[in-house]
Amino acid sequence: MTRRPARLPLAVTMGEPAGIGGEVTLKAWLRRRPRARPFFVIDDPERLERLARQVGREVPIVEISRPEDAAGVFHDALPVIAERLPVPPKPGEPDPANAAAVITAIDRAVEYARFERAAAVVTNPIHKKCLYDAGFRYPGHTEYLAALAGEDATPVMMLAGPELRVVPVTRHLPLREAIDSLAEDEIVHCGRVTAAALARDFGIAEPAIAVAGLNPHGGEGGSLGREEIEIIRPAVEALKAEGISAAGPAPADTLFHERIRKAYDAVLCMYHDQALIPLKTIDFDNGVNVTLGLPFIRTSPDHGTALEIAGTGAAREQSLVAALALAAQMAGHRALLNVRAPRLRRGLDG
Amino acid sequence: MTRRPARLPLAVTMGEPAGIGGEVTLKAWLRRRPRARPFFVIDDPERLERLARQVGREVPIVEISRPEDAAGVFHDALPVIAERLPVPPKPGEPDPANAAAVITAIDRAVEYARFERAAAVVTNPIHKKCLYDAGFRYPGHTEYLAALAGEDATPVMMLAGPELRVVPVTRHLPLREAIDSLAEDEIVHCGRVTAAALARDFGIAEPAIAVAGLNPHGGEGGSLGREEIEIIRPAVEALKAEGISAAGPAPADTLFHERIRKAYDAVLCMYHDQALIPLKTIDFDNGVNVTLGLPFIRTSPDHGTALEIAGTGAAREQSLVAALALAAQMAGHRALLNVRAPRLRRGLDG
Repeated sequence: MTRRPARLPLAVTMGEPAGIGGEVTLKAWLRRRPRARPFFVIDDPERLERLARQVGREVPIVEISRPEDAAGVFHDALPVIAERLPVPPKPGEPDPANAAAVITAIDRAVEYARFERAAAVVTNPIHKKCLYDAGFRYPGHTEYLAALAGEDATPVMMLAGPELRVVPVTRHLPLREAIDSLAEDEIVHCGRVTAAALARDFGIAEPAIAVAGLNPHGGEGGSLGREEIEIIRPAVEALKAEGISAAGPAPADTLFHERIRKAYDAVLCMYHDQALIPLKTIDFDNGVNVTLGLPFIRTSPDHGTALEIAGTGAAREQSLVAALALAAQMAGHRALLNVRAPRLRRGLDG
Repeated sequence: MTRRPARLPLAVTMGEPAGIGGEVTLKAWLRRRPRARPFFVIDDPERLERLARQVGREVPIVEISRPEDAAGVFHDALPVIAERLPVPPKPGEPDPANAAAVITAIDRAVEYARFERAAAVVTNPIHKKCLYDAGFRYPGHTEYLAALAGEDATPVMMLAGPELRVVPVTRHLPLREAIDSLAEDEIVHCGRVTAAALARDFGIAEPAIAVAGLNPHGGEGGSLGREEIEIIRPAVEALKAEGISAAGPAPADTLFHERIRKAYDAVLCMYHDQALIPLKTIDFDNGVNVTLGLPFIRTSPDHGTALEIAGTGAAREQSLVAALALAAQMAGHRALLNVRAPRLRRGLDG
């Protein structure tokens, strides 16, 4: 006997309150669909009410005290679990006095997700410099989430658009340092985590992964660079030896056309722009940042705090809407898998 | 009084006769349009006849002795100026015994173009290794054409698709070496040549050029790399100081979406894949390689000899068709400009 899994709500964090996070959250709620999975935001209810007035959007706010109450009110109001800010945020001017609340909102969202009171964590963008000034000691959001989850391994970043999923193996590094740091181990790690996530969270029974080369023409047999031969090909072979359907290294410029994208479910890319150029060329607004390799689902919009337009009403909510939709979809797949095949689930978790 | 400029034919070279050049030329002729500018090919007429039979295409071949005769026969047959091969080519197996004829075909096409007997040179792909084995001493096609033209400066490579034009500032180098060789002078040179060509050959009165950064997020103010600050921005400033409309450096992943492409006429890219990934993501088959900075117009299809499919009939002619169409279009703009503004023309040539 299978029972329909309960639809837990998504937990949204406030992010930097001087940025556009609040505004896009209000707008995303306005675009809610009747049957969509509900979400709640961990934020300061008074500041959200002020913000709604400021950007001219009518959004009723209801304070709730626990995630379990979100579903009941979501249709009529934006449910907010209160994390009050000591200083009223000024759009565009992050204040380290509010940093502790920003971080606490993340902590609480993760706790809800880990204790299965929320289906996923959807994070609004933070302002790193402001958090650093307040004593935050992690390179970024993702590393902090990994630490909260007690994970040793580096999480894997996936950017998912409507037509393409890319996984940059090296991330925010100068291009020269990205090349220097390219390592077989890390490519294999990314391939493993990606394959497991595609199966568990994206509902793809036998995921196929394409692996891009680093150099023009994929190194052209060594005459245009040796990383393909020395680093990337061995990683592809190692993945294949584990039974993962991986192909490559392929010349990066041959991988992203519509006709070719149908042949795989995700591409491992060797550096940031190799992943982000095709993703944003195809669809600029609907890319979602997904963190794989955490014990819970986490997505986030693929943009920053956009301080320069904060408070003006000009922020576009598309990416947060897409992040919420993808988190809901992933949660649905994972829940289904838990019901259908608890044994398989344990295998993937292990 | 203006008179309509004479429509000179396009001169097509044979390229490597063991590759797909002959086949795509035959197929491109079959796709000729009633009012298209005529072309002729410098090749071995007997081998083209054999090839047409082999790939099952009915293409009447007519040998002509001079470019001036091409227009009269083009509607009914493929005009060929004979450059006979000493050895009948075997598909997929380049023979250095034919290398001299391959090179002579290029020499003759350039001569026709320089003496205004052909409107442009359209080159089929060559097989470098085979030419090297026969004693050829130039790194590639483009350098050889520059030498024939007596040019000191490096020609500039543009890849032009239906929706995007990109100019890679560094070209066929391992990515690490491309970064090492990035230089302000070369970016400025590419920007100058590109701006002049857009005005003269693409009919764009006031061309706008976007310049991509090298590092993720355009270096993020120096924290993700310093090439933007030390090399690229000074080059943009130098171009602006010459009155060229150049903007950047911009984060490369923000430049290629449909909405953004409308804002400029070409992008200077810092490395091969930064240019080729977006170009081929948008349109895989219709990219054309254009050599700017030569005293004549030269285009070529954006593919190689494809030895592995030569002789099978599987070669796709789209890129050669696009190369012919673009060469014709460029020749039209240049001819019009010569009639309308001979003084301006001299200024651009100088």
